[in-house]
Amino acid sequence: MSIAHHIRNALQHASMIRRVADEGIKMRQDGQGSVFDLSLGNPLIEPPPAFYESMKQLLARGKTGLHRYMPNNGYPETRAAIAAWLRTDLDLPFTGQHVFLSVGAAGGINTLFKALLGPSEEVIFFAPYFVEYGFYTSNHGGLPVIVETNDEFQIDAESLRKAVTEKTRIVMINTPNNPTGVVYTAESLRNISEVLRDASTRYGRPIYLLNDTPYRRMVYDEYVDAQAPDPMHFYEHTIIATSFSKDLAIPGERIGYVAFSPQIEDIQEIDEAMAFCARILGFVNAPAWMQHLLPSLLDTQVDMSWYAKKRQRLLSFLRLTGYTCTTPKGAFYIYPKAPGGDDMAFYQELKRHRVLVVPGSGFGRAGYFRIAYCMNDETIDGALPAFAKAYETLHKPE
Amino acid sequence: MSIAHHIRNALQHASMIRRVADEGIKMRQDGQGSVFDLSLGNPLIEPPPAFYESMKQLLARGKTGLHRYMPNNGYPETRAAIAAWLRTDLDLPFTGQHVFLSVGAAGGINTLFKALLGPSEEVIFFAPYFVEYGFYTSNHGGLPVIVETNDEFQIDAESLRKAVTEKTRIVMINTPNNPTGVVYTAESLRNISEVLRDASTRYGRPIYLLNDTPYRRMVYDEYVDAQAPDPMHFYEHTIIATSFSKDLAIPGERIGYVAFSPQIEDIQEIDEAMAFCARILGFVNAPAWMQHLLPSLLDTQVDMSWYAKKRQRLLSFLRLTGYTCTTPKGAFYIYPKAPGGDDMAFYQELKRHRVLVVPGSGFGRAGYFRIAYCMNDETIDGALPAFAKAYETLHKPE
Repeated sequence: MSIAHHIRNALQHASMIRRVADEGIKMRQDGQGSVFDLSLGNPLIEPPPAFYESMKQLLARGKTGLHRYMPNNGYPETRAAIAAWLRTDLDLPFTGQHVFLSVGAAGGINTLFKALLGPSEEVIFFAPYFVEYGFYTSNHGGLPVIVETNDEFQIDAESLRKAVTEKTRIVMINTPNNPTGVVYTAESLRNISEVLRDASTRYGRPIYLLNDTPYRRMVYDEYVDAQAPDPMHFYEHTIIATSFSKDLAIPGERIGYVAFSPQIEDIQEIDEAMAFCARILGFVNAPAWMQHLLPSLLDTQVDMSWYAKKRQRLLSFLRLTGYTCTTPKGAFYIYPKAPGGDDMAFYQELKRHRVLVVPGSGFGRAGYFRIAYCMNDETIDGALPAFAKAYETLHKPE
Repeated sequence: MSIAHHIRNALQHASMIRRVADEGIKMRQDGQGSVFDLSLGNPLIEPPPAFYESMKQLLARGKTGLHRYMPNNGYPETRAAIAAWLRTDLDLPFTGQHVFLSVGAAGGINTLFKALLGPSEEVIFFAPYFVEYGFYTSNHGGLPVIVETNDEFQIDAESLRKAVTEKTRIVMINTPNNPTGVVYTAESLRNISEVLRDASTRYGRPIYLLNDTPYRRMVYDEYVDAQAPDPMHFYEHTIIATSFSKDLAIPGERIGYVAFSPQIEDIQEIDEAMAFCARILGFVNAPAWMQHLLPSLLDTQVDMSWYAKKRQRLLSFLRLTGYTCTTPKGAFYIYPKAPGGDDMAFYQELKRHRVLVVPGSGFGRAGYFRIAYCMNDETIDGALPAFAKAYETLHKPE
């Protein structure tokens, strides 16, 4: 027995996303033709040209001292640049101290949970959810508590209210959402903030609202011109965790940040705790080279029309075929109902046609499936006939 | 109360290294002249030219897909390149599966501890030690157990034997050593391996020997031509955690690896557990850009004569002045006895002369102090008069 028991158990119940990915690897090697893999959120698009321009300029400048340790919360100039960007974007008085540079959003969330969670304190998140939230919580001695969303994947005040206790430390949302693609409405955010404001007063300490928001700038339809509702404008104890993985298409580089609402008290102590936790968890700091590049790239992002076209094609095709889909307003996922209602049966049926999606059971809500459309057109187009056939085979006429 | 109680407590007893660093920041701003800061192991030397050459070549190649998610344990080609390098270096049959790319050595150690440690299992390490080892252990539910080294900072079989129990999962060493600079002798390594082999048999499962070895290629004197004794040649259940932070002078980039002895069984399961733990801890993977650069840089390192000269000058001066120093055979630290025996008093006295070192109490062995000589010559030369004066003031004639 080499590894820890609880890790072996976790591996045996490993994330559905990962199991599907492994299936994909096997199928690609089985010599039976193309695989149309819409399972992993690993963007095929290249980083914007400005990313490489910025790197070339930094190289040409020939500055020294670019790769040393810096303060664990990041280079002051990078923190300040992001704070300035957030000031404009959210119209709140951010300073560098409100911004912690992290090893991706996932690294930021783990650092934050380490800093905030006392033993057996609770973290609430909403189904369907990214399955690793549970591990992020238990890594640091916290207990995950799951609350259901409604049929539109939005948040009811009542469901949340029932779940909040004096042990609740953090409520975690993810808007734009993975796996559903929905953007939380002003009503959802008002519901959350009312419940949390009440509970914070009742229990005499703030409950934090954490928005895991790597898809923040990837939105469609009415949100392209008018900003989507932002939790920071609804609730004072809001924290953002985000990354440049999706909007610069650099997930392998592990660069992101955590931003604290300027309305949060004790920012000095939180800042010190974040630096300390980044160090002892072994992150130490976000990669230096990427930190140097960021200040010139904050207004840059991948061409969203690349995604918008794929979303439109898929949505139209699926609806025409008969699928029920909540319209995704952000990210690059669609989360339709599985025809016939059994997402595992649907997954197997699609797989017979060499198409891979992730069953909703993998996100804590069965009866649905997730399509990731960050793929090239050949993969998406190649999958369409299978969606039609699987619908035909499995749907039950009402 | 914003942050967790146990984190607030830890902050209040924060690492001595960090407290000294904060002192340095304050002193540099006090307008009372230069500070000669020999406290932090943050190399001033620039990365070797090959590092930038490799980056420019990669940019010029214009390859696509360089920044996507890859398998969580790293790019297969980078793993294979490091395995090939290790095969030559250690004459053991490494394959890519034995190499896990990590976010620095610290990230690798945390991932490993998460994968291996069951609840309340014990990790043994040796005083004096890098104070964050204790946190790395407790982060994942383990219990730190500290064993003293002898007067030469080498390891006795007897002291280790007394500390090993059926709860011992990992014994962690650090050779070349921070803070002492010593390289463990063949005798120390034989002592460890005998004790661990016995205990592994007695308790019916392997106790792992982890060598945290970021200074592996930074050695002096007899080890320049003949390789220093390597734990992998003494004990079959040995694991290396290392990084390119020191030998390429890129600590801010967070790139390193964990390598498992080819003699370790169940490598497949360990490999899967490492990938899983990297993911759930939020590292996800080592930075992609650095992973692409590594294969061409494995035989590159900073110019060791830069360090060797500083080491020689400091050692000669200190010994001539009257200090007792064990000869450091690696890394960039010297760990002399504090004149008068009280390392805190000595630290304060040096500070009066605007010189900063880290008191031995910060490494779990009082009565010594650590000099980091990865600084420029002006800083080192500027500190020498203070070392002479502090010795004069504090030493007690025998």
